[in-house]
Amino acid sequence: MFKPTFMRSIPRLCPTLTRRAYFNQGDIHEKIAEDDLFIHKDEAVRFMRSCMEVKGCPPQHSERLALNLLEADYRGHFSHGLNRLAMYVKDIESGNCDPVATPSVIKESASTALIDGKNGLGVVVGEYSMKLAIQKAKEAGVGWVCARSSNHFGICQWYTQMALEDGFLGISSTNTSPLVTPTRAKTPVFGTNPISIAVPGLNGDSFILDMSTSSVAVGKIEIQMRKNQPLPSTSWALGTDGKPTTDPHEAFYKSSGLMPLGGSEVNSGYKGYGLGMAVDILCGLMSGSQYAQNIRKWTNHDVAADLGQCFIAVNLEEFAPGIPDRVQSLMDQLRSMESVDTKNPVQVPGDPERAAMDTVDDEQQGAIKYTPDHITSYRKLAQDLGVDPMRPIQRDNVA
Amino acid sequence: MFKPTFMRSIPRLCPTLTRRAYFNQGDIHEKIAEDDLFIHKDEAVRFMRSCMEVKGCPPQHSERLALNLLEADYRGHFSHGLNRLAMYVKDIESGNCDPVATPSVIKESASTALIDGKNGLGVVVGEYSMKLAIQKAKEAGVGWVCARSSNHFGICQWYTQMALEDGFLGISSTNTSPLVTPTRAKTPVFGTNPISIAVPGLNGDSFILDMSTSSVAVGKIEIQMRKNQPLPSTSWALGTDGKPTTDPHEAFYKSSGLMPLGGSEVNSGYKGYGLGMAVDILCGLMSGSQYAQNIRKWTNHDVAADLGQCFIAVNLEEFAPGIPDRVQSLMDQLRSMESVDTKNPVQVPGDPERAAMDTVDDEQQGAIKYTPDHITSYRKLAQDLGVDPMRPIQRDNVA
Repeated sequence: MFKPTFMRSIPRLCPTLTRRAYFNQGDIHEKIAEDDLFIHKDEAVRFMRSCMEVKGCPPQHSERLALNLLEADYRGHFSHGLNRLAMYVKDIESGNCDPVATPSVIKESASTALIDGKNGLGVVVGEYSMKLAIQKAKEAGVGWVCARSSNHFGICQWYTQMALEDGFLGISSTNTSPLVTPTRAKTPVFGTNPISIAVPGLNGDSFILDMSTSSVAVGKIEIQMRKNQPLPSTSWALGTDGKPTTDPHEAFYKSSGLMPLGGSEVNSGYKGYGLGMAVDILCGLMSGSQYAQNIRKWTNHDVAADLGQCFIAVNLEEFAPGIPDRVQSLMDQLRSMESVDTKNPVQVPGDPERAAMDTVDDEQQGAIKYTPDHITSYRKLAQDLGVDPMRPIQRDNVA
Repeated sequence: MFKPTFMRSIPRLCPTLTRRAYFNQGDIHEKIAEDDLFIHKDEAVRFMRSCMEVKGCPPQHSERLALNLLEADYRGHFSHGLNRLAMYVKDIESGNCDPVATPSVIKESASTALIDGKNGLGVVVGEYSMKLAIQKAKEAGVGWVCARSSNHFGICQWYTQMALEDGFLGISSTNTSPLVTPTRAKTPVFGTNPISIAVPGLNGDSFILDMSTSSVAVGKIEIQMRKNQPLPSTSWALGTDGKPTTDPHEAFYKSSGLMPLGGSEVNSGYKGYGLGMAVDILCGLMSGSQYAQNIRKWTNHDVAADLGQCFIAVNLEEFAPGIPDRVQSLMDQLRSMESVDTKNPVQVPGDPERAAMDTVDDEQQGAIKYTPDHITSYRKLAQDLGVDPMRPIQRDNVA
């Protein structure tokens, strides 16, 4: 089975929003000691696996989901890790996701396949589909697989990393609930529709782009609101009137939507809008799943998500020899460039995650540092489900 | 042979820079009457074909190049049309492009191919490669073709339109000379590295995204400079110090580079940087051509360009039935959305080009309206090459 390694991507911010939407508890502000925040990776996996098993998810599926979520936290993408567990549990409880389902092939050709995810866990559908894409790339040069009836599948790069393990180029993408408003419009149509593209360098190093096609994540707006500070840009969110706002409360509670990558029209936001639409075509329209405004709102757990996803693998051996050498050479060159910001070097897509993983392993004894909100919320979930809560590590000499 | 139709894409601006760099004549300000600006499409094609033939380009290659350039002007992308002819001529004169060369297959598999462009015309390499991609998509589901030793190939959408003619999804991309500076860096590394993605709708309508991965084109900065107005955004260009500038003269003459799509780091410019790098991996690194800073500067005609390009075709019949219907439905929905700008409707990628073509056909009797600069420059070229200059149309009742 595919295991997380040392390959990394572009930062995405960490909304605690989904967890809060689930819990919405008064007890969320319970005092948590600093020492209680550090949970070892293995312990977090144990906890997440147990919660899923208690809800009727088979051990193998529970394991894959737990590893997938842990990987996000390990890489610093807290929005897509433990933070999402409660949503997965809720979708199973409400009958809107079938934790037992396994995907199947609807149709296929030498280099393509259409998959029925059967409303199973996104990670199960995604791993099945990317494995098939890799197999087809081995046989035909390219594997291009679209899946329908899927669910949230975690970080996109989980699947492009699978392609990297075979030395292949990988692309993965998913559509998501409407949040992003097309240029000139006043209503969200597309999700943040992320896409990951990964290509191997040398010695485990690699290029891993993993980006939403929106300007920023909702989490960035939430952070400004909590700090009671204006948004630092007019390229993030639209206000009530459909025009850019910097008021964080308006942007969070009364927004006409997130802006696409680029922001306003003068900054070519229509390119981000076009990219988000292209992702939905590759994922939703090509697979025959829900798409655009037909996808359920992200707070709605009354219907199945029926997401569409796309997985591509390309055998680099079929192209010019030495691709990983050139990728490595280019990455080395970029990292050695003079930076305008003496405190922060020039990076390549994947480097922020490398730094996050180094912090976990080198400075935190293999433990993820969660927030007090995370810990409080998941103590409550443990209680509700009758699962042992996560135990923090015994820390030595940690400042 | 592939012929231009009624499919359209996102706007790119129109630098007159390349033409000016070639001519740099005092006579560029010669007075041109309004009536002299309207050149019928057929006449423009005749002129461009003749100029190429005079320089030793075979009739068939000259025809393809002329149609390719005309298509850009027809769609309102004047930067990539007649405006580029002088550059093609110069590259042939200097021996840095071989107008006679025809491409060949270096290696191939069921769904992939690597092409040697042999330093031929970009349009010849591109059409050859996209045809092969489409053929492979018919046989294997996907065709993924990379070409090296190529030259400037015009607008990306020329090739994705070829895929549309077969009802396929098309993707095309090229690397270009360094102009865009990675996030935090002070020196351009990547070109504007455009990418087109096209998918058919119904009755000739289609989604055609065609976008550079930079925030804006150089031409937009040039326009502000001529108007002596500041740049309207801090997301366009870096000043001498590597920080965003709004001074158009600094941005044009002493810039540390264009900013990637998104602009500054706070607006996720690292996503545009990552996309531009991904394009160079797909085009330059996978094909074994020049890439990143190794590509000649765009004013340098002392060496061959040796560009890398990528062409992908996907047979939509291999996925869920009814894709064009859903594409059409989504486009119709988007176009009918309420706009924040009552004068300008919500559009989908391709609509600005539709409007430009309608203007040519409905309001200008099939004539492209060039600028006085264009006309003056190309009168001079006609004289230099001994080719009949372009004759304007006899206009009826044009305001």
